[in-house]
Amino acid sequence: MTVFDEAIALAAQADGSWQGHTHPGYANMVGPFGGITAAQAINAVLQHPQRQGEPVALTVNYCAALDDGPFSVVATPVRTNRSTQHWTIMFQQQGRIVLTGTAFTATRRETWADDEHRMPAVPPAAELARADTTKARVAWLKRYDFRFIEGSVPVQWDDAHHHDSRTLLWARDDEPRALDHASLTAMADVFFPRIWRRRARLVPIGTVSMTVYFHADGVRLQRSGTEHLLGQAQAQGFLGGYFDQTAQLWNAAGDLLATTHQVVYYKE
Amino acid sequence: MTVFDEAIALAAQADGSWQGHTHPGYANMVGPFGGITAAQAINAVLQHPQRQGEPVALTVNYCAALDDGPFSVVATPVRTNRSTQHWTIMFQQQGRIVLTGTAFTATRRETWADDEHRMPAVPPAAELARADTTKARVAWLKRYDFRFIEGSVPVQWDDAHHHDSRTLLWARDDEPRALDHASLTAMADVFFPRIWRRRARLVPIGTVSMTVYFHADGVRLQRSGTEHLLGQAQAQGFLGGYFDQTAQLWNAAGDLLATTHQVVYYKE
Repeated sequence: MTVFDEAIALAAQADGSWQGHTHPGYANMVGPFGGITAAQAINAVLQHPQRQGEPVALTVNYCAALDDGPFSVVATPVRTNRSTQHWTIMFQQQGRIVLTGTAFTATRRETWADDEHRMPAVPPAAELARADTTKARVAWLKRYDFRFIEGSVPVQWDDAHHHDSRTLLWARDDEPRALDHASLTAMADVFFPRIWRRRARLVPIGTVSMTVYFHADGVRLQRSGTEHLLGQAQAQGFLGGYFDQTAQLWNAAGDLLATTHQVVYYKE
Repeated sequence: MTVFDEAIALAAQADGSWQGHTHPGYANMVGPFGGITAAQAINAVLQHPQRQGEPVALTVNYCAALDDGPFSVVATPVRTNRSTQHWTIMFQQQGRIVLTGTAFTATRRETWADDEHRMPAVPPAAELARADTTKARVAWLKRYDFRFIEGSVPVQWDDAHHHDSRTLLWARDDEPRALDHASLTAMADVFFPRIWRRRARLVPIGTVSMTVYFHADGVRLQRSGTEHLLGQAQAQGFLGGYFDQTAQLWNAAGDLLATTHQVVYYKE
């Protein structure tokens, strides 16, 4: 049982809902790391006794920062078709909704397949230094082994605009843990805010919605094991207080595992 | 009142829900064009008496093909913060859920802004021939003026794999209509299935989830007017019956208006 497993654990309640709990190991500036919250959301679907198939799509909307402590989770299979299932997800604290979401699970079939977005050529994780997060102000950064290839966190916050916001990094859970759909979901949110990279300015931010498309079936998860994943993230547009991020995750063998998108609030 | 306005019209019901109706002008192979269904979903939010701010994010999940006829729409502001609002959306027909969705609206603020994903250099719409959709088998194609720049619908279905799935086109409503968030939402779904382009093979497909991030505020919508929008779409991965599509829409002035993503079922 790793810290990640502890953090996403859900206790079944008599009424069919779940109880989750924020975990100090994944604390962020205000409330928990959004990736762990998203992992809890997909875990409610994965653990559900009526679930059919594997996750294909997940969208979570962060309605408010979670307070430290317990929260209730309801995952509902609102439409079950022959080989597909549509879900709604809701988190509440003190009777107020703090997260909404939808998910889609399906039985995979053998089909023609191709990773059109190929993994960029990069040095292997083993050849790169691990980013030092021992002095990080937020706990969740210590739960990952990050190795930056391009677009690392600015060393100086000097408003020196970069020409783009792209980050390319290797990331894996620390402690190491065999990849599954829950940890892959959390990994979709490990990129620091694109606007910090772009502007070298530490403006307040907060993700409001994140979508993950899973290109990883059981075979690809197993092939990923505990190795680092390669992540690439970039913003497309910044306007009027909101920017987007589009990202990809591949395993070390070059399999595309997830494509993921989010929209983020920013101030200034 | 254009055909588009007719198609997205919603009748307020006594219980606070809306009644929508499929429109023959936007019929697809099976059920309506997904873009018009998404436009109906965002329209329920836009028309809602409690709505605050403008759309920033929308996710719709197509749970089943809609039958021709009426459907009920419920849009609920589940969490209202100072300048932001989270919504859930649900469509039903004959007591069964056919669409789930979530939306996020917010009051835009004056901030630093930049379109990092710039419009590609392309010839203007006026210099390109309109795609002939007069013999199209599905009605909704006739509701758009399409001008392909790259990656048009294959002329022959000969399994001649293309090296990528990218399409670049100009598109506008026919009849011409000043752009708003509803028509922009529909436009996010105008790209024909990437797998048809990639494989030159007419396999059965169906979008299961679509997300739209709006980078268009009122100023940008007004600047777009009735002009063509430039759309770019590409798949990233195809595996086990599902592929994704990532796309961007710009107006003729080069403003980024929306980034949009979807995951699509395919057979074979």
